[in-house]
Amino acid sequence: MSVTVVGSIAFDAVSTPFGIRERMLGGSAVHFSLAASFFDAVNVVGPVGDDFGDDEYAVLRARGVNTDDIEHVPGGQTFFWQGEYGWDLNDRDTIDTRLGVFEGFEPKLSEVSSTAEVVFLANIQPDLQREVRAQCTNARFVALDSMNLWIETARASLIETIAGVDCLLLNDAELRQLTREPNFVRAARQVREWGPRVIVAKQGEYGAAMITEEGFFGLPAFPLETVVDPTGAGDSFAGGFMGYIAAHPGSELEHGLLRRAMAYGTTLASFNVEEFGVERIRTLASDEIAERVTELQRITHFVEKPVALRG
Amino acid sequence: MSVTVVGSIAFDAVSTPFGIRERMLGGSAVHFSLAASFFDAVNVVGPVGDDFGDDEYAVLRARGVNTDDIEHVPGGQTFFWQGEYGWDLNDRDTIDTRLGVFEGFEPKLSEVSSTAEVVFLANIQPDLQREVRAQCTNARFVALDSMNLWIETARASLIETIAGVDCLLLNDAELRQLTREPNFVRAARQVREWGPRVIVAKQGEYGAAMITEEGFFGLPAFPLETVVDPTGAGDSFAGGFMGYIAAHPGSELEHGLLRRAMAYGTTLASFNVEEFGVERIRTLASDEIAERVTELQRITHFVEKPVALRG
Repeated sequence: MSVTVVGSIAFDAVSTPFGIRERMLGGSAVHFSLAASFFDAVNVVGPVGDDFGDDEYAVLRARGVNTDDIEHVPGGQTFFWQGEYGWDLNDRDTIDTRLGVFEGFEPKLSEVSSTAEVVFLANIQPDLQREVRAQCTNARFVALDSMNLWIETARASLIETIAGVDCLLLNDAELRQLTREPNFVRAARQVREWGPRVIVAKQGEYGAAMITEEGFFGLPAFPLETVVDPTGAGDSFAGGFMGYIAAHPGSELEHGLLRRAMAYGTTLASFNVEEFGVERIRTLASDEIAERVTELQRITHFVEKPVALRG
Repeated sequence: MSVTVVGSIAFDAVSTPFGIRERMLGGSAVHFSLAASFFDAVNVVGPVGDDFGDDEYAVLRARGVNTDDIEHVPGGQTFFWQGEYGWDLNDRDTIDTRLGVFEGFEPKLSEVSSTAEVVFLANIQPDLQREVRAQCTNARFVALDSMNLWIETARASLIETIAGVDCLLLNDAELRQLTREPNFVRAARQVREWGPRVIVAKQGEYGAAMITEEGFFGLPAFPLETVVDPTGAGDSFAGGFMGYIAAHPGSELEHGLLRRAMAYGTTLASFNVEEFGVERIRTLASDEIAERVTELQRITHFVEKPVALRG
């Protein structure tokens, strides 16, 4: 069993009120891979340039990630993103984006990657996502992320791509934008009519909500006193969520299992934001994950007791 | 045992994408009273003008609310608020505010009101809230709500008032503004140092979060396909929350009881927004509340199961 992710491998320059990193390993496929690596074998697919070196490969390989499908484009530069966060870490400005080798990217999956049972189509152009989906004939669970850019410039293609996956995992605001429906329950119902049976809205610091055939499930974010860098939180969430699903082959994808997957996603995202980039996740220990999931269960649970209500 | 609330009694004009009401009963003390009335005897304190008639009194009395401390100011006009919501019901514009009799309001509590065990100081000028607090010598649990206006114009007085209550119940954004701290865990810790032992952040459509000495508790909002009018949701939340506490005299205010109070608050708020103004709560039946709390428990709960993590 394994998980395959196709997405960006990047260098990020990030400034937050808590510090600055001028160049660090990032990208959706990287954040996803490291989070998912706690659950199952992970194959990462994406392009890099000449500036992507042994140190970067080492971070992925140290967590057992299969890097054979990282495509090195000679003479190219790795995707670069520069962003700045204010005191309210929900507000972020993109300062610079340089596509580099990402511009001409055409995903080519080896047999190992294309036969994975669980596949995550991280945020890339929806036509490419659809091509990858078509290559993964063995997949039992495929999820997709996207962004405002594709909703605005390639909506029809994006909806066609969404129709072919099992799960849409999208930011709250982008789900509204995509469906033109501000209400989450209605938006999720609409997307489910397009095809996917699982809809997850990422709500940033407020947590995440899921709708399946069996109904709604909501979880707050894990409360943290120190949030240093939110970059990659959504992809770490996806890594924990999809990784947990991958770790349960042969299980029916019932609501209980998907709820637990949400809890692991929430937990991985919470570690991700505690340090810059991948700094926290790369040194994370599995018992820290287990402890935090237990704590998350505790702080979201209430025990109902009957009370005499006045009619 | 009883609950006393001091706050606004109003006529509201509300426009949402789902309809318009040009003049309906509203105000923080009204929304709170109706929600709390399912749990305990409620005394409502606030001023009204000549335009406040039998029909309005009847809505409160039908739910058993004690209206003896509603102060009728001869020749005056009841507080009037006009607001407009867009498709995203989180965005609201205030079109008009006419203080009317609220301008010269000096709360006078009868013995019945001032001896309540549970007291809610709804959003009014903080000096007045402090005067009310001083009159309620018998109270075992006092909570306070406020708004950006008082944070901006009377911050020192507000903080002094907060120091004298057990619980601060505030919008998320206003809690940030008050503490100048974007992180909820830190903001709550700061407010707890001022005095209150319970901090509740109302997060609108995302739910609510609480911090006490025993830690964090978070609940999503109850998922609804139809949200017609969010006006009064926060006060209905407070009514359910405080009402549940009032219904448990002699109980220690431990975290488990406060969590259940949060669940009842969330539930009352969810009913409130399903219709305009008080239209839904005034016809609400107690078994509907009980059913929804059970459902809320179900949709926020996950059962942890160990998974083999890769270290």
